[in-house]
Amino acid sequence: MKVSKGRSFLFRIPEGEEFGAFINGFAKKHNVLIGTVTAIGTLRNPKIGYFDEESGRYRVMELSGTYELVSLTGNISIKDGEPFAHIHVALGDSDGRLWGGHLIEGEVFVAEVFVQELLGEILERKPQKNGLALWDAEGL
Amino acid sequence: MKVSKGRSFLFRIPEGEEFGAFINGFAKKHNVLIGTVTAIGTLRNPKIGYFDEESGRYRVMELSGTYELVSLTGNISIKDGEPFAHIHVALGDSDGRLWGGHLIEGEVFVAEVFVQELLGEILERKPQKNGLALWDAEGL
Amino acid sequence: MKVSKGRSFLFRIPEGEEFGAFINGFAKKHNVLIGTVTAIGTLRNPKIGYFDEESGRYRVMELSGTYELVSLTGNISIKDGEPFAHIHVALGDSDGRLWGGHLIEGEVFVAEVFVQELLGEILERKPQKNGLALWDAEGL
Repeated sequence: MKVSKGRSFLFRIPEGEEFGAFINGFAKKHNVLIGTVTAIGTLRNPKIGYFDEESGRYRVMELSGTYELVSLTGNISIKDGEPFAHIHVALGDSDGRLWGGHLIEGEVFVAEVFVQELLGEILERKPQKNGLALWDAEGL
Repeated sequence: MKVSKGRSFLFRIPEGEEFGAFINGFAKKHNVLIGTVTAIGTLRNPKIGYFDEESGRYRVMELSGTYELVSLTGNISIKDGEPFAHIHVALGDSDGRLWGGHLIEGEVFVAEVFVQELLGEILERKPQKNGLALWDAEGL
Repeated sequence: MKVSKGRSFLFRIPEGEEFGAFINGFAKKHNVLIGTVTAIGTLRNPKIGYFDEESGRYRVMELSGTYELVSLTGNISIKDGEPFAHIHVALGDSDGRLWGGHLIEGEVFVAEVFVQELLGEILERKPQKNGLALWDAEGL
């Protein structure tokens, strides 16, 4: 859908916060109902997920230690009546190898975040038969 | 070059579409001549390319199965007279390992996309001696 | 902090330039004091860093050869009185494997860059006890 630009925010999340919970709280506090999120930094003990179609669930991988947050790309929309950030991350280990997937959890060591609010109709995640919660799709 | 902001679009591509073809079709339909594209989601059987300078061609890698679309970064400009999206992707396998490069082809399972139209002079890809099609470079 | 949108730039950096130095020079030339940077392309002999908390320094990894620049995410703010770009990258080798972290150095083969200027209060990196230079953190 076509959206227009709302407010923009550039900030650092305090050390020790859980990334996703912080962004969901930020969106709720500032009433950001639709938006995009990007970030770089460093995360501790991140949990990432790979969606397994057969089981309809995420396979969870718990990485231990500190990882460079090489890329973080996400969007904000409504899920269960509240603003919710869907986030994917690429994480670098101490040898420069990259790991990643759907961000389930990650403790912030450093997170420099850009949030762009978007304005438009309500965009809502609805439970699907395959186990995911998705927006209605839009064809050409 | 300096550009100004045009329209913004946030949407989910229907399952089964080929990502690049869909974005090129979207740009053509909405007359987006310059822009940026980002996305997260999941792709099936993606083909990625590594540009090999010696041969002046992309080395093509065909990944089979379903991959988390960890990051997708692209831009839209004019190639052969039509809007064309140049896209790079990072893809996560079921062990959380990342693979990626130039996106040649990828079937959408889930794709949540943000397109930002930009307005400015025509920005066109021109064939180079090295085998790539590039915009004119701009020095400082 | 809340920021507003300034100018936008989409351009290709000439072959042979060092990526970070070029962006710092670009920001200085155009007086971009706060902003975001994204890019795709190809880099030669990139040096990436992993921040090691124990030593308070980056562990430097020198990659040799040409790598697809799969994602580049960065921000611009003030460090030591001048505009400074903090950049993380994901890089793809000829087998499609991804490597990455903090971008220390990278020679441009191709770099297609989008810079978004942001306007707001001065945002400054200050030396921390842990060895990093960071913005003040903002809680909820």
